[in-house]
Amino acid sequence: MALAEYDTKVELVTEHVWQNREAFLRLNPAGEVPVVIENDGPPLCGANVIMEYLEDTRGYAAGKRRMMPDNPDARAEVRRLCEWFLSKFHAEVSDPYVRERIYKVEMPAGAGGGAPDSASLRTARQNMRHHLRYLGHLVSKRDWIAGDAISFADLAAATAVSVVDYLGEVPWNEDDAARSWYARMKSRPSFRPILAEIARGVRPAHHYADLDF
Amino acid sequence: MALAEYDTKVELVTEHVWQNREAFLRLNPAGEVPVVIENDGPPLCGANVIMEYLEDTRGYAAGKRRMMPDNPDARAEVRRLCEWFLSKFHAEVSDPYVRERIYKVEMPAGAGGGAPDSASLRTARQNMRHHLRYLGHLVSKRDWIAGDAISFADLAAATAVSVVDYLGEVPWNEDDAARSWYARMKSRPSFRPILAEIARGVRPAHHYADLDF
Repeated sequence: MALAEYDTKVELVTEHVWQNREAFLRLNPAGEVPVVIENDGPPLCGANVIMEYLEDTRGYAAGKRRMMPDNPDARAEVRRLCEWFLSKFHAEVSDPYVRERIYKVEMPAGAGGGAPDSASLRTARQNMRHHLRYLGHLVSKRDWIAGDAISFADLAAATAVSVVDYLGEVPWNEDDAARSWYARMKSRPSFRPILAEIARGVRPAHHYADLDF
Repeated sequence: MALAEYDTKVELVTEHVWQNREAFLRLNPAGEVPVVIENDGPPLCGANVIMEYLEDTRGYAAGKRRMMPDNPDARAEVRRLCEWFLSKFHAEVSDPYVRERIYKVEMPAGAGGGAPDSASLRTARQNMRHHLRYLGHLVSKRDWIAGDAISFADLAAATAVSVVDYLGEVPWNEDDAARSWYARMKSRPSFRPILAEIARGVRPAHHYADLDF
C-alpha cells in the first residue's frame, strides 16, 4: 500500500515463510515478509524499514502525497503509531487471528497446522475491541491517525485492520469514528488490491470489499 | 546510551511498568519504557522512535558522533538490525531472561511473580547461541554491526546483550569476533552507566563490569 501511494510499481511474489527457504533466508535472515528489492540495492526487510526507505528516497519529491511529516515531534507520533499497529496490534490481534484461522488451514500438521485454538481467538476478540476504541479515539480528535494529514500510520493501521476485517472480526458498530476513517481508507486506489486479495481456504466476510459497509 | 552518545543530558526516572500507573499510561498508552520527554514536546515512546528523533533533531549537527549514515541503503541496514536486536533478540532471548530471572523476583505473586520457568530459560539459552553466532558473523565481515561506522544498531545490540551478560548467560568463548566487538562497546564512556546498574535482588555475573573479560 505504501509503495502504491508513492506510485512505485512492484512485482509481488508470494513467500510461504514457514517453509524457511534458504534462498529467502539469505534475503532476510529474520525469515519474515515483507521484503522489497529495488534495482541492485540490498533487500529492504520489514514494513518499517521499507516505509523509512520510501521517505528517505522519495519523501521530499512526493509533495502532497508524502506519508511522513516534516516536524520531528510529528514524525515521532507517526512512528509510534506505525509501531503500535505493526507490532502491538499484530501481536495482540491480527497475528493470533491469522495463525489460528488462516495459517493453520494451509499448514501441514507437522508444521503446526490443525484446528484453531478457541482461547487464543477469545483473547484476540477482546483485544480487538480495545484497539478499535483506541483507533476511534485517535481519529475523533484529529483527521487522521497520527495528525491532520494522512501518514504511514494510517497505512499501517488500515492494512493491519483489513486482515481482521477479512475474517469478519471487527465490531464496527461499536465505533463510528473508526468506521468512517476505515471507509475513507478503503476508498483509496492504493487499497484496492488489498480488497481483491483472497486467502486460500478462507472466504472473506461478506462486507469485506464493500466501500459502504 | 543513544542520548549519551549525542551528549544529551537526561534525568532518569524508574518506572515499574507492571503497575500500569495511569499517569504513565497517559504518556505512553503502550505502557512500555523507554519514554523520553524533551522540553514541552510530546512523549517519545520506544527506543526506535527515540533514535529516529535524535537523528532528525541532532543527526546532521553531530558530525562524526552521528549514529545514522546518510545513504538510504545503509540507513535501511541500520534500521533492520535495530529491529533485530530490539524486537527479535528481545522476544527470543532477553525478554524471557528478564521475565524469568529478574521481574519474577520483584513482582508480587498476584502479578505473575514466582519461580523461573526452566523450559523458557532453556529455549532462551539456545536462542542466545544462535544470536551470538549471527552477531559474530556481522562484525567479522565489517567493523561494526551495520557497516564500517558505529551506528544505532551497535547501541541496540550492545544494550540488548548487556542484559543477558548481566545474568552471565552469554557464552563468549564461542565467538571471538562478537566478544571483541562487545569489549569495544563496553569501553565507550556512554556504556559506563549501564555497567554500574544493579537489578534489585539479582547480582551481576562476576565479569559483567570488566572491560577485559
